[in-house]
Amino acid sequence: MFVIGELINGMYLSIASALKERNKAVIQQCALKQIKAGADALDINCGPHSANPVEDMRWLVETVQEVTDKMLVLDASKISVIESGLSVIKNPVMINSTTADAEKLSKFIPLALKYKAKLIGLTMDIKGVPQNRDRRLELAATIVEYCLKEGFPVEDLYLDPVLLPINVAQAQLVDTLEAIRDFKIINDPSPKVVLGLSNISQGTFVRSLINRTFLVMAQSYGLDAAILDPTDHELMNALITAELILNKQIYCDSFLDAYLKK
Amino acid sequence: MFVIGELINGMYLSIASALKERNKAVIQQCALKQIKAGADALDINCGPHSANPVEDMRWLVETVQEVTDKMLVLDASKISVIESGLSVIKNPVMINSTTADAEKLSKFIPLALKYKAKLIGLTMDIKGVPQNRDRRLELAATIVEYCLKEGFPVEDLYLDPVLLPINVAQAQLVDTLEAIRDFKIINDPSPKVVLGLSNISQGTFVRSLINRTFLVMAQSYGLDAAILDPTDHELMNALITAELILNKQIYCDSFLDAYLKK
Repeated sequence: MFVIGELINGMYLSIASALKERNKAVIQQCALKQIKAGADALDINCGPHSANPVEDMRWLVETVQEVTDKMLVLDASKISVIESGLSVIKNPVMINSTTADAEKLSKFIPLALKYKAKLIGLTMDIKGVPQNRDRRLELAATIVEYCLKEGFPVEDLYLDPVLLPINVAQAQLVDTLEAIRDFKIINDPSPKVVLGLSNISQGTFVRSLINRTFLVMAQSYGLDAAILDPTDHELMNALITAELILNKQIYCDSFLDAYLKK
Repeated sequence: MFVIGELINGMYLSIASALKERNKAVIQQCALKQIKAGADALDINCGPHSANPVEDMRWLVETVQEVTDKMLVLDASKISVIESGLSVIKNPVMINSTTADAEKLSKFIPLALKYKAKLIGLTMDIKGVPQNRDRRLELAATIVEYCLKEGFPVEDLYLDPVLLPINVAQAQLVDTLEAIRDFKIINDPSPKVVLGLSNISQGTFVRSLINRTFLVMAQSYGLDAAILDPTDHELMNALITAELILNKQIYCDSFLDAYLKK
């Protein structure tokens, strides 16, 4: 599993305030603690209250790159914000995200090609998030087809079936699991599948329990990557144990420690 | 999920000693604490050191029936021990277990029919536990075919793909998950699928974590029932949360408590 740490996000007060004050230490500590906890990459999101996201994204990318060479996942819906991050990128990079709308695909795919970036494709469009399995698959196929047409390597595409909160769309969670399996057989080579995990438990009282239970199921359906909080110890233990059960890590008695030393 | 409590088993010292001393209180308390923790049925096993399992099984069944009318799952490989329990049964009952050997099937299926018992069928035979997915499915089909021929209702058959310890047969765990899905489509009506969960973590250092991680995956593959320790609080929380994600319980903020009051 490719673990993308979610904590550098301006929706958290400490990050928003560090952004405003240009406090590098807070951002860099947040980066390092996620890597220590098992993150393979770091999501970078200016948050909803950034007054100047184009400027903030550039500063965040530069600040984080001072302390790590891990992949950065530039997270914004506006292409100008993504471009600003890309303009100073040195680390491996992923763009988060395009939708299945032609207008978005026609801008994001050339940008990903130009910067040799991996790309997250949300299986939603201007009409919103699909309410059923077939429509999710249709939107996934639309994105894959566009990549093939434009010469973007499908194995660098990370399809995101858009996980909704359990207290909003409980009946769709099984569809979301099945979507992971569906997406993997759209093309050969297969696209990858990613989830923004924490969304499932928005507004619930036992967030970590719901997050880790769904994550483990999703792993068994073939999930490749997840955006999550790697400092949630119970979540990471579940993730590592799932890798073991799925025979992706070799068993040893101290397999939990061994994973973090990989 | 149909939860079968595993704790009334003579392999535990307290149960072995209560059996020897005919101490009803210990057995009955063990029954009641499992039911309180969420067990829908109770496995009854005299253990490997019982000097007189035929007699012990009868006493255990009578003792447990004094305090509950939940289903009892009579767990022995010798048919004489199962018969002894059946001779005094009043509660709903399940036989645990036959294998796919004709010699076993020819005895256990008529017995299950006679007592209107549900029946666990291990997908193994005299040659042992299968090492691959196809052979598991073949043995499952053998058992289902025998049931159809003898008029045993397939929906009362609980196929058990035989879960092996992760430190012994790590590469087979994915096969075991796939077997759950395979078994469900052998026949219409579908047979049910059950697992003896704790076996997966025999000899490991983080037993509960491995148990609950595998259980959640197995639930998402269609598992109907599991023999497990319902007093493992973290395990039951994972099980309940998995039911919620799979849309088998309706979401409410206190869904963990609500499940146990069902």
